[in-house]
Amino acid sequence: MKILEGGLETVPGYSFAAVECGIKYEHRLDLSMIFSRKPCNAAGVFTTNRIPAAPVRLCRERINNPIHGIIINANNANACTGAEGYAHATALCSEAARRLGVGEDSFLMASTGVIGVQLPVRKMLDSIPRMAETLTPENGKLIPKAIMTTDTFPKACAVSFTTSKGEFHIGGTAKGVGMIAPDMATLLAFLVTDAPIPKPSLDALFRRRIADSFNSVTIDGDMSTNDTAIILSPESEDPLSASDECDSFEEALGYVLSRLAQMLVRDGEGASKYVTVTVSGARTREDARKAAKAIAESLLVKTALFGNDPNWGRIACAAGYSGACMREENLSISINGVPLFTRGSTQAYDRDRLRMSLSEREIDIIVELGEGAAECKYLTTDISYEYVKINAEYTT
Amino acid sequence: MKILEGGLETVPGYSFAAVECGIKYEHRLDLSMIFSRKPCNAAGVFTTNRIPAAPVRLCRERINNPIHGIIINANNANACTGAEGYAHATALCSEAARRLGVGEDSFLMASTGVIGVQLPVRKMLDSIPRMAETLTPENGKLIPKAIMTTDTFPKACAVSFTTSKGEFHIGGTAKGVGMIAPDMATLLAFLVTDAPIPKPSLDALFRRRIADSFNSVTIDGDMSTNDTAIILSPESEDPLSASDECDSFEEALGYVLSRLAQMLVRDGEGASKYVTVTVSGARTREDARKAAKAIAESLLVKTALFGNDPNWGRIACAAGYSGACMREENLSISINGVPLFTRGSTQAYDRDRLRMSLSEREIDIIVELGEGAAECKYLTTDISYEYVKINAEYTT
Repeated sequence: MKILEGGLETVPGYSFAAVECGIKYEHRLDLSMIFSRKPCNAAGVFTTNRIPAAPVRLCRERINNPIHGIIINANNANACTGAEGYAHATALCSEAARRLGVGEDSFLMASTGVIGVQLPVRKMLDSIPRMAETLTPENGKLIPKAIMTTDTFPKACAVSFTTSKGEFHIGGTAKGVGMIAPDMATLLAFLVTDAPIPKPSLDALFRRRIADSFNSVTIDGDMSTNDTAIILSPESEDPLSASDECDSFEEALGYVLSRLAQMLVRDGEGASKYVTVTVSGARTREDARKAAKAIAESLLVKTALFGNDPNWGRIACAAGYSGACMREENLSISINGVPLFTRGSTQAYDRDRLRMSLSEREIDIIVELGEGAAECKYLTTDISYEYVKINAEYTT
Repeated sequence: MKILEGGLETVPGYSFAAVECGIKYEHRLDLSMIFSRKPCNAAGVFTTNRIPAAPVRLCRERINNPIHGIIINANNANACTGAEGYAHATALCSEAARRLGVGEDSFLMASTGVIGVQLPVRKMLDSIPRMAETLTPENGKLIPKAIMTTDTFPKACAVSFTTSKGEFHIGGTAKGVGMIAPDMATLLAFLVTDAPIPKPSLDALFRRRIADSFNSVTIDGDMSTNDTAIILSPESEDPLSASDECDSFEEALGYVLSRLAQMLVRDGEGASKYVTVTVSGARTREDARKAAKAIAESLLVKTALFGNDPNWGRIACAAGYSGACMREENLSISINGVPLFTRGSTQAYDRDRLRMSLSEREIDIIVELGEGAAECKYLTTDISYEYVKINAEYTT
């Protein structure tokens, strides 16, 4: 596997376009398109929210069709918009398909932004021809920018890998920051590959790798109405075989998804720290996950980290209410390599030195439950004044 | 039922003491005692945290004993303190019992404060005689102050009620603010009554009324290692009968617990708003509770409220991921009496006027699921810069 510069644009067979449509703001790329002339297999993971946005409903219906492209808009979620919102999403997809001469139901859509406002569909329909005419491989560079909302930097990643059938590529982009939580697709992410993967393998591998990457990220514990992750892979009569060749694909896919997940956490809204929570020694993987998630989502832990305070008691407390099986006498906690609580006993430590190390951007929390051998890692951020400010001011 | 001025001190049969022991800070009431010369039935509800503090473990063991008193300290949780911490708690209870000439296992204990630090037990043992000598009914007024940590005001409440056996009283106090979450005892609360209630009724009624009051309060979703709510009622050969007389008691008890819960939310750490979330029209009570809890705990809802932003989309989103059964087309949301989303359709409203009303301290969110007849209310707060500040600076 080789790590490449760039993202989507490194993958042969796809073209892209992005325009300033003025969906909510002027002079901002906010509408974009991913296109493949060849029909693709698509795999998708979507929000488990009971009020999914219109584009999520549309994607769920079409995900098993041969897919030619994806339309993406920022600054309007098209959620809580009822039948009208759904009609807008289908109209945009149909217009794109018609312009590009592909099957009517071969476009997917994803949206992000404010909930409960209808899309400015007239403007958006008018922008479709402009996008269809400006599709190029190089424009793949624009997509990470065009899908941003409160993100502070565009996120992209690409790799190549070799199999007995030759060299292939995976490129991807994601947007996230607010409203990121595990147990669901979380956020928007789009990946394309030129490796032809059979649909059942594509579904299974994508789902498995999402679980280890995006679904182990938490910023504020809110699960959006719009979270969508989609991968496209060309249909082929000679796809990669399910064994070795798909293994190299899976490794490369795992890398791209994990890198994108790390970038999301690094860009957590108003975050000043990048925190890895590792829970090991759990009786089961589910116990490890519960404890890691509770610690990563605890407001008291996150505010302590913001204050450079090695308040391990709050970590113990969060693990304790997570529901994971644990006992005080078996529990150990260390922060940035410094043992603070070992098998039920508090440890002496150099407080000034640890506070200093907590003032760095990277924080490493390790919790050993001492009940078994299962482990889980979560990525999270602290919570800062800035987080409150951004979310108090991001108005409807 | 009559609402009385004051709290614990209004209930005949009990005496109280509070001293400045210097547990963490000087010149601050931090150690206190509740005492009854008559043996009492006690009922308690405790944290479900898997790492319960030493005093919680002690209370769980003794709650069915005849009880004469409770020792309470602030500024040290005596949690994650192992066998030594547990020995400290029993030593303090034994010393109090010995000084007052009552059964050795007849004292309970509760602690609140920082986790993972041993109690300054020598100082505390030395303070027991001073407390035993200064026990008076009037000192009941000191308890609410002596149990405070980051609370900004003491919380107390009392009522009287009449049955065929005469007039009785219930008085109570609580402390809370940070680390308050539902589904557990939450916080510290102490109630005393002169109404003799049979132990099984006392257990059942206390548990039921806690569920409707303290367990429907959320500030930051963290569940402490120390949460404890205890009520004492004198043993008697002629207790109130389980029917009518206990009904008047339950009504009075419900009032005291609800008032204390309201005071806790009003004093939420760094809170600028007092928010009531009502979810109605749910298929089941559990569905209503899930939705109300998700909305009340959503950081995105709480930051929007802090910013006076009627961002009902975040409310819909939180209800959507709560797991409660719901459909967009049946969902309605109003804030402060203004309908914003009605059976799946957005409503026009006077934005400036609603923002103005959101700038008031009291906010009322009503979510109607349109799926059934069950309802649940949650009390919560917004999240402010002040919350982050308090919790970043409250050091270990």
